[in-house]
Amino acid sequence: MLDDLRAQVLEANLELVRRGLVLYTFGNVSGIDRKTGLVAIKPSGVPYESMQASHMVITDLDGKIVEGDLQPSSDLATHLLLYREFPSIGAVVHTHSEYATAWAQAGRSIPAYGTTHADYFYGPVPVTEELTADDIHGDYVHNTGLAIVRRFRDLDPDAVPGVLVAGHAPFCWGKDAEHAAHNAVVLESIARMAFYTATLNPECKGVSQALLDRHYFRKHGLNATYGQKR
Amino acid sequence: MLDDLRAQVLEANLELVRRGLVLYTFGNVSGIDRKTGLVAIKPSGVPYESMQASHMVITDLDGKIVEGDLQPSSDLATHLLLYREFPSIGAVVHTHSEYATAWAQAGRSIPAYGTTHADYFYGPVPVTEELTADDIHGDYVHNTGLAIVRRFRDLDPDAVPGVLVAGHAPFCWGKDAEHAAHNAVVLESIARMAFYTATLNPECKGVSQALLDRHYFRKHGLNATYGQKR
Amino acid sequence: MLDDLRAQVLEANLELVRRGLVLYTFGNVSGIDRKTGLVAIKPSGVPYESMQASHMVITDLDGKIVEGDLQPSSDLATHLLLYREFPSIGAVVHTHSEYATAWAQAGRSIPAYGTTHADYFYGPVPVTEELTADDIHGDYVHNTGLAIVRRFRDLDPDAVPGVLVAGHAPFCWGKDAEHAAHNAVVLESIARMAFYTATLNPECKGVSQALLDRHYFRKHGLNATYGQKR
Amino acid sequence: MLDDLRAQVLEANLELVRRGLVLYTFGNVSGIDRKTGLVAIKPSGVPYESMQASHMVITDLDGKIVEGDLQPSSDLATHLLLYREFPSIGAVVHTHSEYATAWAQAGRSIPAYGTTHADYFYGPVPVTEELTADDIHGDYVHNTGLAIVRRFRDLDPDAVPGVLVAGHAPFCWGKDAEHAAHNAVVLESIARMAFYTATLNPECKGVSQALLDRHYFRKHGLNATYGQKR
Repeated sequence: MLDDLRAQVLEANLELVRRGLVLYTFGNVSGIDRKTGLVAIKPSGVPYESMQASHMVITDLDGKIVEGDLQPSSDLATHLLLYREFPSIGAVVHTHSEYATAWAQAGRSIPAYGTTHADYFYGPVPVTEELTADDIHGDYVHNTGLAIVRRFRDLDPDAVPGVLVAGHAPFCWGKDAEHAAHNAVVLESIARMAFYTATLNPECKGVSQALLDRHYFRKHGLNATYGQKR
Repeated sequence: MLDDLRAQVLEANLELVRRGLVLYTFGNVSGIDRKTGLVAIKPSGVPYESMQASHMVITDLDGKIVEGDLQPSSDLATHLLLYREFPSIGAVVHTHSEYATAWAQAGRSIPAYGTTHADYFYGPVPVTEELTADDIHGDYVHNTGLAIVRRFRDLDPDAVPGVLVAGHAPFCWGKDAEHAAHNAVVLESIARMAFYTATLNPECKGVSQALLDRHYFRKHGLNATYGQKR
Repeated sequence: MLDDLRAQVLEANLELVRRGLVLYTFGNVSGIDRKTGLVAIKPSGVPYESMQASHMVITDLDGKIVEGDLQPSSDLATHLLLYREFPSIGAVVHTHSEYATAWAQAGRSIPAYGTTHADYFYGPVPVTEELTADDIHGDYVHNTGLAIVRRFRDLDPDAVPGVLVAGHAPFCWGKDAEHAAHNAVVLESIARMAFYTATLNPECKGVSQALLDRHYFRKHGLNATYGQKR
Repeated sequence: MLDDLRAQVLEANLELVRRGLVLYTFGNVSGIDRKTGLVAIKPSGVPYESMQASHMVITDLDGKIVEGDLQPSSDLATHLLLYREFPSIGAVVHTHSEYATAWAQAGRSIPAYGTTHADYFYGPVPVTEELTADDIHGDYVHNTGLAIVRRFRDLDPDAVPGVLVAGHAPFCWGKDAEHAAHNAVVLESIARMAFYTATLNPECKGVSQALLDRHYFRKHGLNATYGQKR
């Protein structure tokens, strides 16, 4: 069942390892099959070295396990909320990649300092508000998702495919698992360059609206010109 | 004698190499067999490339060599004191991993800036007081252990499995050699992210008590939910 | 056609990968055959893993594709302008290498802080002015080249083989693709060391004119003494 | 002739590559045979990948080439002066390793911030004065050596086996090529940790005299206790 989705989700998990974004069993990727509303997600605390597609856990959008013997990632409820609230996305990636996590810990959005950023994120990578004690004592993982959704009230998740959860770490997404993992890898590079930039020039204002538009729409939307025609 | 313990201690030493925590012959791991009170520890100044389980030196809790032809790690007396004072721990790891060492050199505890930290350390990673000239001229390695123990007078070594020795470097511990090495690797990642965080936001207050509780007890204690059921 | 040039351009592209200067499909190298005025350039958005010399696109100096089924790099127009304006150069390299990009994002030239810099760049690595909204809304990629050329009005591109485009990233060049890629790799190392230097000593004035002269002319020009006689 | 010395010098050069201290053809190692007063040094500008022991150039202490078809390293005269002035050393290593070079560029000595430093350097790693225009216009490479020697007027090169040349980069030495390269590798690690430490605590005073003594003499001199008895 959903063998292609499982394979894509496994592959995206392994891409995080290859790119140095995860340590030990940190991080998780899920993907959704929009026709059936079923989600495939990495199991919790399983070593990447021995992970196989068959280990991916299949749940419905309420988190009920439909197939699989392992416990799903402990961040499942955040993934599910994002699928319900952002209907255009097909996959979610969560890592504790070190520079993006540092911005999240510092409680700072990552400004659009350059064209690398503008190629992927149409504006700053936003940081959520801190969760309240009530949020944390309650349904914490679900409430993490709510904090993300609140932060995106006036943002388009297709134009800004990632967020920093304050005091925690980044979540990214995309149309499928490969793109979501790609966004997570690029986010870490952007976060690293932004760290250096903010150190070199604390007053840096970042790219102009014109440059943001030019680079973002070069790679996205109907008039995109980057890459080979398909 | 104690072949399993030797093998675990060797493996944990090699894990430090694989994770980039040690340079040349820096660093050392020991493990204790609580039934016999015997300790297996890395020999002093032996290259990791040629290290074998049979090279691990077996001593009693007073440091008397019970088995082995090599000199034990020069930090042995610190390890032994920790075993005597922290009865629940089964292994000790010492490295000069670069970011954790920098915090130790700077004389600063590592604040609990985020959930990665809270997953492993229930509060800041504390730094000891500086050793006095008398401490240093006397039984220095033993006195290093005493400085750690004094620092933990009001701390639980099971909830805070590591410390920074001021002007020196970190020590970590755990229930066995694998867990102690794992804690040392995660500490270095935490120290790195905390360095970036403190640079991005010098006023950062770190996680709330609620978030610290939530993450720590998600992975530790009777109500832990992370990973697979055993 | 131009098989040697294609092979050199491919090899220089792969050198960027080996040296960690590019992520995914970022970055591009071109080379020119001055006799025919034809340029070989990396195709747009093609993975480095499967890239072959035959994928290099051949264009004339106006950007007309002369040979090749793939779309050329989206930065082609910048490369072409540099070839037209800097007649001594034989290759152009563009990367988003992280430290050089951070200086570009910060809008700061890289000062000649030491002899490593002076061995390659006879003075600071300059940063362009920001492009105006008109520049960006117009023929953006061509205008990026114009901003570089304006910045070099009083500079010798042979003595300063690279530039930072403000808010974007570096471009480097050289007599052929190998040298241009070599300059890009060294620029990233220089940018990294300059970042550390500026942090350690914000008032650092950099090398004296005498030291700049000594090191630059040790490696360049008729009296160069570095390396083996040819 | 001097086959063992050539082999040791080659091996030390390759160790610099393995440890990430050199880029392209940067860096050089030499060793001296004190009986004959002959020096083996890396050739200038030869790729490390194809370097063989037979490529090492043999010179006398005045720099006259005694054996070898290649040009010696362009830094030869600095090495030779150090051999003449520091009679106890057996090898010299020069790199542009990035953190040590940044301290040299910043014109700052590296303070003894911790025990890792104290294990190798009995006090700060000193920085020379800047060379004057006359020094640079004259016999520059020799004068670089003179600046080092002047800086060591009140220092013991056996207790402080390295120096930062202001605006340039580090030189290290040791009893043989292996030890000199080892010191260069450790210096880079120390420089990196010192960079982090100075950022975390700009007022850091570093280790006490007692701690400096304890660590240095644990590894050096008649009462050394580190490692295995020989």
